[in-house]
Amino acid sequence: MSFDMLASFRSDLPVASDGWLPPPEYSFVGGHNDAASVPFTGLAEALVTALRREGSNLAYYNLGGSPLGHEPLRRFVVSELGARSGMTGGPDQVLMVSGSLQALDLVNDAMLSPGDTVLVEQATYGGMISRIERMGVRHVGVELDEGGIVLADLRAVLDDLAADGVTPKYLYTIPTVQNPTGTVMPLERRQALLAIAREYSLPIFEDECYADLTWGCERPPSLRALDAGGGQVIYCGSFSKSIAPALRVGYLIADEPVIQQLLALKTDAGTGSLEQLALGDYCPSHFTGHVDRLIEALRIKADAMVDAVRNEFGDQVHVAPPMGGIYVWLTFPEGTDTDALLPAAKAAGIEFNAGSGWSSDSQWGKRRLRLCFGAADVDTIRSGVTELAKVYRTS
Amino acid sequence: MSFDMLASFRSDLPVASDGWLPPPEYSFVGGHNDAASVPFTGLAEALVTALRREGSNLAYYNLGGSPLGHEPLRRFVVSELGARSGMTGGPDQVLMVSGSLQALDLVNDAMLSPGDTVLVEQATYGGMISRIERMGVRHVGVELDEGGIVLADLRAVLDDLAADGVTPKYLYTIPTVQNPTGTVMPLERRQALLAIAREYSLPIFEDECYADLTWGCERPPSLRALDAGGGQVIYCGSFSKSIAPALRVGYLIADEPVIQQLLALKTDAGTGSLEQLALGDYCPSHFTGHVDRLIEALRIKADAMVDAVRNEFGDQVHVAPPMGGIYVWLTFPEGTDTDALLPAAKAAGIEFNAGSGWSSDSQWGKRRLRLCFGAADVDTIRSGVTELAKVYRTS
Repeated sequence: MSFDMLASFRSDLPVASDGWLPPPEYSFVGGHNDAASVPFTGLAEALVTALRREGSNLAYYNLGGSPLGHEPLRRFVVSELGARSGMTGGPDQVLMVSGSLQALDLVNDAMLSPGDTVLVEQATYGGMISRIERMGVRHVGVELDEGGIVLADLRAVLDDLAADGVTPKYLYTIPTVQNPTGTVMPLERRQALLAIAREYSLPIFEDECYADLTWGCERPPSLRALDAGGGQVIYCGSFSKSIAPALRVGYLIADEPVIQQLLALKTDAGTGSLEQLALGDYCPSHFTGHVDRLIEALRIKADAMVDAVRNEFGDQVHVAPPMGGIYVWLTFPEGTDTDALLPAAKAAGIEFNAGSGWSSDSQWGKRRLRLCFGAADVDTIRSGVTELAKVYRTS
Repeated sequence: MSFDMLASFRSDLPVASDGWLPPPEYSFVGGHNDAASVPFTGLAEALVTALRREGSNLAYYNLGGSPLGHEPLRRFVVSELGARSGMTGGPDQVLMVSGSLQALDLVNDAMLSPGDTVLVEQATYGGMISRIERMGVRHVGVELDEGGIVLADLRAVLDDLAADGVTPKYLYTIPTVQNPTGTVMPLERRQALLAIAREYSLPIFEDECYADLTWGCERPPSLRALDAGGGQVIYCGSFSKSIAPALRVGYLIADEPVIQQLLALKTDAGTGSLEQLALGDYCPSHFTGHVDRLIEALRIKADAMVDAVRNEFGDQVHVAPPMGGIYVWLTFPEGTDTDALLPAAKAAGIEFNAGSGWSSDSQWGKRRLRLCFGAADVDTIRSGVTELAKVYRTS
């Protein structure tokens, strides 16, 4: 008779994973990207060069350098990526992390306790919602329109909470290529949002993971850039979308005392060095050209998916062309339950992210869903949407 | 006037990090390794081969495969590394993690709640002690001798706890090349330890991070191997010690339902793929030869450090030659306070890990300290120990 180890586990854990299965024919979930665009040859060459120069440093944690991360990469992040959204600063304002998910974990660990309240966009990243809920923290959604957060609603939510004596710990926002809606908040609204944040002493946690893949408009300055040293904003970004999801490298940018406090919570003995070395040598001369090409590939896929949704669903679905990134967000008629479509979709070889998991109010999200167009080719996108429409009509 | 972000942070956080400084001349802290032995050319060649074969899979999270990790590497871990300590099993019993520190976090997250109690060895890994304490969990130390855990003391501790109605959640043990003492628990004691664990329904969390670097004796079967499917043991290992610390790749081995539950807590979207791809191609043909050479290099350094300690400190210090790994553990006379030596050591360009942080009872650890001999060359080891003895004598 064998010992029941699971009986010693906590009783409040997330449900155990199922065994893994390969993706179906029409896989529109998650954040996978365009396989033909991954610059693996360039990354390999960069890594070979970096290892020839400093491979023996692998013998030391953090390559013998600062635990903030590989310094050439931090310099690239703050000077070149930061400049894309108007930020200035030095490499000691950058903490390299093991994917932007670790950035979320570090900020949550630093700021949240059970019973706290945070503000999120009414549709937002599902991985953030599940994190907040597991911490026993309440999230309150703020209304979105085609320019992002509706400021009148933000003010109303803040006033309502204040009337109840509640001070939210932060506002989590994805202003540039919002996940899942694909919108970009215009400059003026960013300035007004910052003014409200200052008025209410509301910290902003700005997630710009998709911002390097903006094509629908000129990329506005980040909230952190507009804050101009005001201390109101912690910023995070990632190489998962711009280079490759299987690289687990992201970054936090904040004022140095904040970075040093977050670093004290990063007890993982450093972020992977091969990935940081490869990016540190690859990015300075190749990032811009690569991202320009990737955007062209993604834009074609986005157009194909939006056209397919409009052709197949007509008036039944609202969809807006995304301003960048890899997702479209579909809104169905009142009464639709996209969770209920999942079994029939699965039987038809289709995976999508039901809107309930990407919404602060899961009821509000029930008639919505997210499709990723990053990985599938145009033909697969078209046939997949056709099949999804069949599933919808027969459900 | 700028916003005080830190005022919004939790009040119970670890102290913020200081700015990073390069290591001093005699750096004997942490787990750095022998720079001359790092197989960076082989790793680069392996990665180039792997990326040529499947580089476009970087476009997908987990390379498009199982979230348990890169399957060729999991196969190597369970079949070849597992075989080194007598384990059998399949790749679905392996979860690749971002360094063995993530293994500790996952197991702690799964098993521990504030107020719980765990058993540890009286001298143990400092990063585990700090993790347990930050979770609000109590750790109780079990006596060690030159063969590891003293079983009579383990039984006494268990009986004392039971008398108080306390059931410890697990026993954390490093049976092979114990950190920091460098001992290896003999086979018979392992069998007897398992019998006690069964008798008391005590889960065992077995950390074999240093076990591939055993040279003082033949490596015994792991507790997990001896348990033979009994379900009593969760095992973790790492490539940080055997290949390079700057690679953040470790692994958990446990029964499949346990692995699937731990996977549900691993919300990092996967462990770094470049590192897994490089190891997956490098290890099957190169691991054994590399580790044999690394052991030869480390053994020379270990001998040099033990000799230097004995020459410089004579009867004042007890030190035992380690059976492997990269550390020696020094015990000073009653009344010594190695924490108090730190400032003078720092002024002399010496870093060491004071024993209080590597001991369940920090008072017990006060007259002890740990030295890492992995990174320094033999001359530096000798001069560093000479300087440390001067600091000790003048303190």
